Amino acid sequence: MKRITVLKFGGSSVASIEKIKAISEYLKKRTENNEKLLVVVSAMGKTTDSLLKQAAEITADPDIRELDTLLAVGEQNTISLMAINLNHIGVPARSLTGMQAGIKTFGQHTKSRIANIDSEFILKELEKFDVLVVAGFQGVNENKEITTLGRGGSDTSAVALATAIAAPCEIYTDVTGVFGTDPRLYPEAKQLEQVSYEEMLELSALGAGVLETRCVEIAKNYHVPIYLAKTLSEKKGTWIMENIDLLEKKVVTGVALDKNILHVTLTCNGCSPDFVEKLFNELDTQSVNIDMISQVVVGSNINISFTCKKTDKHFLERVITNLSSAFPSIESTIREDCAKLSIVGSGMRDVSGVAARAFRLLGKNDILFYQVTTSEISISYAIDENNAEKAVQLFCEEFNI
Amino acid sequence: MKRITVLKFGGSSVASIEKIKAISEYLKKRTENNEKLLVVVSAMGKTTDSLLKQAAEITADPDIRELDTLLAVGEQNTISLMAINLNHIGVPARSLTGMQAGIKTFGQHTKSRIANIDSEFILKELEKFDVLVVAGFQGVNENKEITTLGRGGSDTSAVALATAIAAPCEIYTDVTGVFGTDPRLYPEAKQLEQVSYEEMLELSALGAGVLETRCVEIAKNYHVPIYLAKTLSEKKGTWIMENIDLLEKKVVTGVALDKNILHVTLTCNGCSPDFVEKLFNELDTQSVNIDMISQVVVGSNINISFTCKKTDKHFLERVITNLSSAFPSIESTIREDCAKLSIVGSGMRDVSGVAARAFRLLGKNDILFYQVTTSEISISYAIDENNAEKAVQLFCEEFNI
Repeated sequence: MKRITVLKFGGSSVASIEKIKAISEYLKKRTENNEKLLVVVSAMGKTTDSLLKQAAEITADPDIRELDTLLAVGEQNTISLMAINLNHIGVPARSLTGMQAGIKTFGQHTKSRIANIDSEFILKELEKFDVLVVAGFQGVNENKEITTLGRGGSDTSAVALATAIAAPCEIYTDVTGVFGTDPRLYPEAKQLEQVSYEEMLELSALGAGVLETRCVEIAKNYHVPIYLAKTLSEKKGTWIMENIDLLEKKVVTGVALDKNILHVTLTCNGCSPDFVEKLFNELDTQSVNIDMISQVVVGSNINISFTCKKTDKHFLERVITNLSSAFPSIESTIREDCAKLSIVGSGMRDVSGVAARAFRLLGKNDILFYQVTTSEISISYAIDENNAEKAVQLFCEEFNI
Repeated sequence: MKRITVLKFGGSSVASIEKIKAISEYLKKRTENNEKLLVVVSAMGKTTDSLLKQAAEITADPDIRELDTLLAVGEQNTISLMAINLNHIGVPARSLTGMQAGIKTFGQHTKSRIANIDSEFILKELEKFDVLVVAGFQGVNENKEITTLGRGGSDTSAVALATAIAAPCEIYTDVTGVFGTDPRLYPEAKQLEQVSYEEMLELSALGAGVLETRCVEIAKNYHVPIYLAKTLSEKKGTWIMENIDLLEKKVVTGVALDKNILHVTLTCNGCSPDFVEKLFNELDTQSVNIDMISQVVVGSNINISFTCKKTDKHFLERVITNLSSAFPSIESTIREDCAKLSIVGSGMRDVSGVAARAFRLLGKNDILFYQVTTSEISISYAIDENNAEKAVQLFCEEFNI
């Protein structure tokens, strides 16, 4: 039995026929090395954008069921061209649309989720062919309608396919791997050889954003290792996998920065305890996602701080207005020039003193923080936006990122 | 129960978003007039050509299974855009790929044939939606692979769908209808109000070519009337339907000319009767399609004339060379500057003297013919190519085309 690997190539990696040819040659070498490959591809270059532009010429609010059928055209174009090329250079290959690959989805059009995959069919096809080229980003729902998976959809397709056939997943992209922090913020940042699912989830969620959270979550739940590297590059990438106990484990693996936040503090003097419930109901009604929630109750005074996206400001103000009628004593402070700085590392679980080192560093450098929250493997601070870059550098130096 | 009609729009009719919008408005009016519509569309403008060009950048001989998946992208693009537009202007509409519409095919990729259509599903969908927009030219085979139907495929899709749900079929195109002859050959040619399936079949097969033979054949076999007209034009088109006895039926409906022929005469002196069998075997082996076959046996001399495509000359010569070894006495004459002129009319069945008028006309005008063949409703002559245009005009004038 040959080894099976799932590989994923993003839109810029397959942006031209020349690039598709180069990747096909690489895949050929891999098959000659006794491998069977399941290759997931995105639409070529800017294809998805130009399809969206076609729809926008008709209406700003297209029927989402039909939009999915339109967008799915992009990946179908790539898979057939790559399969034509592979067969042309002597590699037995076959293309599969999301529907043909049996990627069953549920939920709303344009942001469907994968329910299951027909792994038996895929394994049978892999007996007949050396390479299967599968359209990423797309699937089919129970009504046999074409669906798409939303942002990061092709990565999710790849990891879900790897899960279904219990194979490792290699994701090829524009970057050489996962860095401890964004190299634009800290040019000395080192690339990580390995990062745990949990760390990657924190880094993704915090805006380091090489991979979408949902595909890392699937990989974590089904123990599928992901190798993230630059397309057709010799440079080693980063493994995202189970946490392995290294002899000298790094305490902090990464530093992430998210500038798209508002920091909000609400104070309600002499409020009844259902204030909090009402607040969260109202936030839900207005679809404001919040983060970094802290609550302190002093006597009958309820103090709550949280962050939300800067773009949700209008809806947030509506929340506060609506609450004010039931709770007239409410006072609010909205800080717009805020950023969220986080340090992440699964080593924090066992090593004490990380928090102390972090607080000391901020204090010594006169960086004020409005709020701090912690998880098992991360600490996040809400700080002034104009301190953000400096703080990233300080943390990177301190923890050798 | 609302009336159901199948409409087909070709590639140039949907070549831009603007054109798709205009057709959508027209469809809206039809639905407001108590109709349910099944609309079959081709790929937009030159889309199919540019997809073929992509494949050609990789190889001149692409895997045909993958080529079908590539080409199917074109129609999927059109159906989703049209469905987006219809929904946008308030017409409940849904797009269906060939696979989704249940257009099951058999036979080779790139020239598959329709086995059957899931009419129950389509009628059920037509209860829910006012317009279904179906991708022409494509289907799905028993292995769930995407297939395409070859030349004239979208017309065939439309007629097959009309057959499946017993609805009339309107085919909208660049021309205003079926003419008695090619107006480029005879500018006074009149457009026909009505033409029988048989006449249309002869005209199509003889190169008048508004519709491919196969779709007319399906319509004939299942008694589906076809209305052929110009897209979004007020001008009346042509009905292609069962032969109806008109009070004053035209004897000759059309004149067709095919310049892409070679005329071949083989003489075999003292040949055994298996010569003919061997000849046809050899033609089959070399894939040379022949037409206008005449055989005359004089004693032990076998004389055979036939025509084939000019482009098959190389293969024809190979046939003669291969035969010569078994039958050394074979003599061949190949006339390259030939054309096939045909007059077609279902009235010929009942009206005698058409052949006599035709022969007289050719004789009077010194137009030599090398061969003549007849069918129930047509007479074809092999004549010199440089007499072709003149002969078309003479026939059109004689029979008031």
